[in-house]
Amino acid sequence: MLSDIVLKKIKSIVKVDDFVPLHEPYFGGKEWEYVKDCLDSGWVSSVGDYVNRFEQMLCDYTGSAYAVATVNGTAALHICLLLAGVQAGDEVLVPAVTFIATANAVSYCNAIPHFVDVEERTLGLDPDKVNHYLREISEFRGDVCYNRFTRRPIRAVVPMHTFGYPVDLDRLQEVCERYHLVIVEDAAESLGSFYKGQHTGTRGLVSSLSFNGNKTITTGGGGAILTNNETIAKLAKHITTQAKTPHKWEFNHDMIGYNYRMPNINAALGCAQLEQLPGFIKKKRLLAQRYQEAFQNVTGVRFFTEPDFAHSNYWLNVLIPDEEYASERDNLLEVTNNAGIMTRPLWTLMHKLVMYQDCPRMDLSVAEDLERRIINIPSSASLGEL
Amino acid sequence: MLSDIVLKKIKSIVKVDDFVPLHEPYFGGKEWEYVKDCLDSGWVSSVGDYVNRFEQMLCDYTGSAYAVATVNGTAALHICLLLAGVQAGDEVLVPAVTFIATANAVSYCNAIPHFVDVEERTLGLDPDKVNHYLREISEFRGDVCYNRFTRRPIRAVVPMHTFGYPVDLDRLQEVCERYHLVIVEDAAESLGSFYKGQHTGTRGLVSSLSFNGNKTITTGGGGAILTNNETIAKLAKHITTQAKTPHKWEFNHDMIGYNYRMPNINAALGCAQLEQLPGFIKKKRLLAQRYQEAFQNVTGVRFFTEPDFAHSNYWLNVLIPDEEYASERDNLLEVTNNAGIMTRPLWTLMHKLVMYQDCPRMDLSVAEDLERRIINIPSSASLGEL
Repeated sequence: MLSDIVLKKIKSIVKVDDFVPLHEPYFGGKEWEYVKDCLDSGWVSSVGDYVNRFEQMLCDYTGSAYAVATVNGTAALHICLLLAGVQAGDEVLVPAVTFIATANAVSYCNAIPHFVDVEERTLGLDPDKVNHYLREISEFRGDVCYNRFTRRPIRAVVPMHTFGYPVDLDRLQEVCERYHLVIVEDAAESLGSFYKGQHTGTRGLVSSLSFNGNKTITTGGGGAILTNNETIAKLAKHITTQAKTPHKWEFNHDMIGYNYRMPNINAALGCAQLEQLPGFIKKKRLLAQRYQEAFQNVTGVRFFTEPDFAHSNYWLNVLIPDEEYASERDNLLEVTNNAGIMTRPLWTLMHKLVMYQDCPRMDLSVAEDLERRIINIPSSASLGEL
Repeated sequence: MLSDIVLKKIKSIVKVDDFVPLHEPYFGGKEWEYVKDCLDSGWVSSVGDYVNRFEQMLCDYTGSAYAVATVNGTAALHICLLLAGVQAGDEVLVPAVTFIATANAVSYCNAIPHFVDVEERTLGLDPDKVNHYLREISEFRGDVCYNRFTRRPIRAVVPMHTFGYPVDLDRLQEVCERYHLVIVEDAAESLGSFYKGQHTGTRGLVSSLSFNGNKTITTGGGGAILTNNETIAKLAKHITTQAKTPHKWEFNHDMIGYNYRMPNINAALGCAQLEQLPGFIKKKRLLAQRYQEAFQNVTGVRFFTEPDFAHSNYWLNVLIPDEEYASERDNLLEVTNNAGIMTRPLWTLMHKLVMYQDCPRMDLSVAEDLERRIINIPSSASLGEL
């Protein structure tokens, strides 16, 4: 049975005591020191030194000119879309393969997610397929790309770097320039992943990161907005802090804003985590290399590796059974989870969820094919001890 | 000059070293123990024991049957309004005197805030005035109260317990029963405040709390939804956790949800703070009593005290200059702030903000009168040392 072989291979790499989670955080740096300092200072909330420091550290690491820390990645993406000019009634191209937050963030803008297919090489949005599709279904009115069938503007596209593997951004950018679409990168899963040497989340006009508890680094709950555009950065800070205009004591607000600022205590945790990020990535890539070697000669299943243009954080490791073993997926999930090794399938595709089933979409055959087969296997940095 | 007398009186109660903030948190309990335990456990994010424990402690303290901890009070109120059945295009009655989050939460539902006046006795919504107003402007269509002029349903009313002083809920409830309006209490400022022995936030169908850094207790950023209705409580938990349906590994979501869950590390802080709440309230009430005595015989200004039906947390203390001294407000603000004693005026009234100036509203003469006069003075629990 394939499932027995897979279980044996995972066990050859991952030490199983009782339970191996899919991804757990590791607090081996200055977490206590910074959090204690934050408590001692009394500044635990939406104003404080750690938030500013965390933002600067994010800029230094990613090469982004600006970073604005938020309460989580969903909130960051919501604001990114607003900053990209997404308005009520617009359509936004979103991969069918993604976590629910990507589509929900579009809904929060009262816009409509329009689902597009992915490619097997990256697990992310397929620029060529999107290009052909837009040639069929879109038309320009003035400068703006419209969906000919729904008569709605197609305003933006959200490449999501699935499990940390970068989308082919050069090819995507060409398509977006052709159709005047704004790129908003959903880099929630790809902190530490680079596309041709450039950190993911720095190509789009504005991009989002996530530091949820299951991510490569965590702030408890947290996210960030990245941009190289100063005007957008200032607006991002303004909108995420209830759009309050600065004054010593007056309370004025000049637009509808949000209470989306990352609290200082969460940022304190983030600073300590970010210091360890290069070490985490090294371990995660070593773990992936071990998996790759272990699965090299296993018939019926392939360990997914980064495309050649990418240097990935290997946030979540991926096994893809061959087509003729697709029916083994559920068995693989049962056997591994029953053995205390947490694995999981791909997210249910967005267009299959009850609230999004009537949204526009293209042929999603690659996404559907991957959904039937992919499983994620344990990926914590601590599993890749040197 | 009134400002010199006021400054002297405040200084007689508040020790000024360098700077006295309006309200600062106090970490004198098990904050560090719980936060460290949380870090050591690895469960810092949206799942964890401290969140459940914090919710149980909130129920025990407030007497609410259910509590759902959220990322902040704004998020809590947003979900409260959805749970109250507020839909796009509805109107929601909101006091003109409130922090921006109250009106914004209505906007997040694509509903329209409809501003109503407050009474000087409570600083909160005036039930009688609202009653007379609704008699003028509303009509029933079937069971639903409509605004005759805008032709929109008036769905709910949001009493906000300003600075912790309870609204007259009995009178409000009568009015709401007459007009079929759902009560959603914005109890962001009133944790520890009771109306006729009942904790604020437990009378409405569903209510919100806030634990921002400036509140009576803090979780860094945080809030909670209170309700006595089991169905609503379950739905609150579901919507605030991305509406994911429970399964060992499948990712299914059955409605548009939000990433609004309070992280466990913030809840750890909250548990330690909540243990100290009775002590904080005692100190805050003692501080208020000292202020009251100090200002008793000062001509031209009144220290605001709780109405007789209330036991208030005195979250923020309030001075109200008499009408003939109203023009002194700016001078009072200047003199105190320049002396290192933080004071501030009332929030800019909601209907004066650019994004809300076209919303429906009633006569707001009391709100406008209070806006010209009120100032808040330092109110931290630590200032009321026994």
